[in-house]
Amino acid sequence: MIQAAILTVSDTAAKDNSYDKSGPAIQELLVSSGKYDVVLTNILPDDEHMIHDVVQSWAQNATFPVDLIITTGGTGFGTRDRTPEAITPLIERPASGIVHFLLSSSISVTPLAALSRPVAGTHGKTLIITLPGSVKAVKENLTALLSANLLDHAIDLLRGGSGKTVHQAL
Amino acid sequence: MIQAAILTVSDTAAKDNSYDKSGPAIQELLVSSGKYDVVLTNILPDDEHMIHDVVQSWAQNATFPVDLIITTGGTGFGTRDRTPEAITPLIERPASGIVHFLLSSSISVTPLAALSRPVAGTHGKTLIITLPGSVKAVKENLTALLSANLLDHAIDLLRGGSGKTVHQAL
Amino acid sequence: MIQAAILTVSDTAAKDNSYDKSGPAIQELLVSSGKYDVVLTNILPDDEHMIHDVVQSWAQNATFPVDLIITTGGTGFGTRDRTPEAITPLIERPASGIVHFLLSSSISVTPLAALSRPVAGTHGKTLIITLPGSVKAVKENLTALLSANLLDHAIDLLRGGSGKTVHQAL
Ligand code: NA
Repeated sequence: MIQAAILTVSDTAAKDNSYDKSGPAIQELLVSSGKYDVVLTNILPDDEHMIHDVVQSWAQNATFPVDLIITTGGTGFGTRDRTPEAITPLIERPASGIVHFLLSSSISVTPLAALSRPVAGTHGKTLIITLPGSVKAVKENLTALLSANLLDHAIDLLRGGSGKTVHQAL
Repeated sequence: MIQAAILTVSDTAAKDNSYDKSGPAIQELLVSSGKYDVVLTNILPDDEHMIHDVVQSWAQNATFPVDLIITTGGTGFGTRDRTPEAITPLIERPASGIVHFLLSSSISVTPLAALSRPVAGTHGKTLIITLPGSVKAVKENLTALLSANLLDHAIDLLRGGSGKTVHQAL
Repeated sequence: MIQAAILTVSDTAAKDNSYDKSGPAIQELLVSSGKYDVVLTNILPDDEHMIHDVVQSWAQNATFPVDLIITTGGTGFGTRDRTPEAITPLIERPASGIVHFLLSSSISVTPLAALSRPVAGTHGKTLIITLPGSVKAVKENLTALLSANLLDHAIDLLRGGSGKTVHQAL
């Protein structure tokens, strides 16, 4: 099983967690795929330092080492949106292909998805991906990632797997 | 109305502004959309420092605060092309989705559009976008941006708007 | 003729070069196009510093100045994959369009291509491109680049060409 963590970034949801629809949507999609345990969740306001510190602590956590961190929210042009800026300094190996895949699949649904500014990459053995805040966009993005088996293949490789399946498919 | 500035980058046009076809094409497209005032224009040679300083002064200008800066030219592989290098240090929040949208729409017209090296993002409340120098490419890129309402939605959010339309569309 | 160099990055092939299928595949595609001389080749393990130093020495070589450096391997999520991290510090002008083109054409073949993390750009007058390790992916990527004449147009511009063909096509 893949150990996953979900961070919701939203000033509104940080005050009242009943507003968080996207975090639970991610959790449901991951769990119902049968491959993921969601071991950590949190809701933070759009505070760059808090986002950075929580994601860093999750990626470096010795007690609950997570394979995957998915954030939702704060990736747009709102004055407070700084999730990519919080995460970028933690990215040791940028995953330009995952960013491309996310944008390509979501822009094909609506060109307004071009207003998202996603980042993705690895920190140690942890894969970090930033999804938009909208629950509709989150479901579309994550469904696309899961149906292509992108996350589990990436994590298999991060864990030291040979990636034979991936290599043969490529 | 959105306050826009246009910078043409071209050694040739900097010597004789009658060679600048792309700057005027941008101005016409923006103005004819009915949503933009073009409040500042300039033509510079392919000089990295001059480009940087003019774009910085426009983005930080207290008298004519601009919402949008569009450059044309200097984004290719010519020995003098350094517009992306001039702009990148000014980008506080990179807009990977807008870059993706520009490349995706122009490569679908001609694969040679892959020889462009666009950057986009925000500096303070100003959105900065680099378009290629060719007037044909500029028209295609800007028409695609305008028809998807990407710029005005981004700028509405930069001004503090709630982005409800964007969120619902996503 | 365009002077090209090919670097294979693979722990396995570095021990036994008969395992290197991708380097020879690149060489054959380049040479059979009739436009390229392959003047330098090497096989290295997935060692970030060695990759960096060899690519730097090739890009800066006064005796065999190369127009094009293509690497294969080390662009994925394997624990040892660090080719993009070795090359990125050498990139003076990032080529976002070429990265987009590579990802777009390979993801259209298989979504698993989103697990590649390519970088591309220029160092001095040399164009550097990182391809995946799989021989199938390498052939697909390079065939796409060659059939669109992207590399020779870029290199013509890097050598000081006017780029008239490119400008008119755009
Ligand atoms: Na695409």
